[in-house]
Amino acid sequence: MKKIINDPQNFVDEFIEGILLAHPQLVKTPGEDARVMVRADAPVAGKVGIVTGGGSGHLPLFKGYVGAGLCDGVAIGNVFSSPSSDQVLEATKAVSGGAGVMYLYGNYGGDVFNFDLAADMAELDGISTLTVVGRDDVASQPRERAADRRGVAGIFFAFKGAGAAAERGDSLEQVAAVAEDIVDNTATMGVGLTPTIMPMTGKPSFELSDDEMEIGIGIHGEPGIHRGKLETADEIADRLTLPQIEDLSLQKGDEVALLVNGLGSTPLEELYVLVRRVHHNLAERGIVIAKHYVGEYATSLEMAGASISMLKLNAERLALLNAPARTPFFQEI
Amino acid sequence: MKKIINDPQNFVDEFIEGILLAHPQLVKTPGEDARVMVRADAPVAGKVGIVTGGGSGHLPLFKGYVGAGLCDGVAIGNVFSSPSSDQVLEATKAVSGGAGVMYLYGNYGGDVFNFDLAADMAELDGISTLTVVGRDDVASQPRERAADRRGVAGIFFAFKGAGAAAERGDSLEQVAAVAEDIVDNTATMGVGLTPTIMPMTGKPSFELSDDEMEIGIGIHGEPGIHRGKLETADEIADRLTLPQIEDLSLQKGDEVALLVNGLGSTPLEELYVLVRRVHHNLAERGIVIAKHYVGEYATSLEMAGASISMLKLNAERLALLNAPARTPFFQEI
Repeated sequence: MKKIINDPQNFVDEFIEGILLAHPQLVKTPGEDARVMVRADAPVAGKVGIVTGGGSGHLPLFKGYVGAGLCDGVAIGNVFSSPSSDQVLEATKAVSGGAGVMYLYGNYGGDVFNFDLAADMAELDGISTLTVVGRDDVASQPRERAADRRGVAGIFFAFKGAGAAAERGDSLEQVAAVAEDIVDNTATMGVGLTPTIMPMTGKPSFELSDDEMEIGIGIHGEPGIHRGKLETADEIADRLTLPQIEDLSLQKGDEVALLVNGLGSTPLEELYVLVRRVHHNLAERGIVIAKHYVGEYATSLEMAGASISMLKLNAERLALLNAPARTPFFQEI
Repeated sequence: MKKIINDPQNFVDEFIEGILLAHPQLVKTPGEDARVMVRADAPVAGKVGIVTGGGSGHLPLFKGYVGAGLCDGVAIGNVFSSPSSDQVLEATKAVSGGAGVMYLYGNYGGDVFNFDLAADMAELDGISTLTVVGRDDVASQPRERAADRRGVAGIFFAFKGAGAAAERGDSLEQVAAVAEDIVDNTATMGVGLTPTIMPMTGKPSFELSDDEMEIGIGIHGEPGIHRGKLETADEIADRLTLPQIEDLSLQKGDEVALLVNGLGSTPLEELYVLVRRVHHNLAERGIVIAKHYVGEYATSLEMAGASISMLKLNAERLALLNAPARTPFFQEI
């Protein structure tokens, strides 16, 4: 296991300390527990607060999306482990500006459990919450069971849209409706080439032969829908893109936002080789990519692989994506 | 070799096509050869043009730094290979707005040869050029022979400063002086944990045992100054940082800009563990980090490892870093 770490026990707290030291203008920790982090100017009076969170090991998800125009607060757990309900509650209180707080996180059992518990506690403290769960991984469930899908990189679109809606002064119900609308119109599918090596155990998150890939893999190594010989970039792009075109019922003339996301150790060059093919695929069908995001947006430590996400656009969704944002890892001017 | 590519022969041209398709608002190719790329509004009349370039395989270096406030044009070659002098000349002509063109690239033989040849040809075409060569790798030569050092990730500081100087209307001589000043005050040192796998051959760029690291390694796998058992993040941070403090003669009260750069497959979490230690190291000595950059700025495809760069600041250098910039991979608001 080749990692640049100290005692694996301290890995999460040490990288969080690094984030806080590097970005004091943008983020702060509201109390004693640095796993809870909020934007530097939180709470913003009169604005809906947005709290996200989940396991560590996915940077820039989640810590990287805290700031103006995106999320207000975050609580994270150990690598691939949920934060506690107390941590979520602490984030909730710290971002509550009197207009309510929306929870927006990926659809995983531990996270759902702890955010729901925090919601109950927040209610007792007089803070209204609404919850929207990211569930964009089309490989994890068919569209009929979309409510059970895992949440992966496409949650970025919901952060961006809901963050912009909150920033312009939408109510809690309105911000949640924006997030729900974006989640409903987002699809993602990933490919894994190598596993994550878990820092505490030194063990891989899954096993895969030297010449194999897994299509539809989750960001914690959850099983996908096809395991086979590694194919070309174009073949992989097709396997990830075509199901999304169907899932989102994309038609000639539709516009999408495209996110080609690296899972950790896949070079940016390879992501752009994927972009090229997705572009040709969509262009052939008369579908326009109106906005591109290419890079690492939701990772799995050093997993090699990539995911492709699409958000079906309308004028409202595109305007929300184009609104300004400023966080440690993402800026929109 | 697990790469998301098609025919390795087409790797460079395909990722370039992806970049052009993804960022048409920011960059364009001025002629037939997409390996030459310039900012979308080039040439900017009356402004000094900045041209960079080098081998492929280092994204976001070089293609990612083309745009307002950074470089105007770029020419790249095959993986780890220089662009041709004709390609550099084409970029030169395309960005020439009448105020001259500065060449700013890393100190490697092939690049020096081809940029010098292009400078001679540009002169015949009536375009004045000046050249500044990035040479920040303190492991490659001692300070007495700083002119022979390799150029690595620290060239980003020179791009940023020179780009801002050109944008505010400095003359060619002034822009070159800014770049030279920043290069003189920049130090970098890297650590390699795993090699790059060369796309054409499937072979690693160097060999390293499963439990070893190499301190001072170059971004093409050039030999470093120490090979040994993998150490902790704190020990690695010390090995990379302390020589720079000496090299830049940093004293109590000095301010620096810090760049902690991933070489390809090292997770962002690990980079922040390094940031933490560098912070403590400098704080102990009364040296202040006034500006942080953390992420992948100059890579070596999927090499695991990191580099740490520091720029000794003064008010002028900090103001240039803080000036706005907008490119595919880097924005400063």
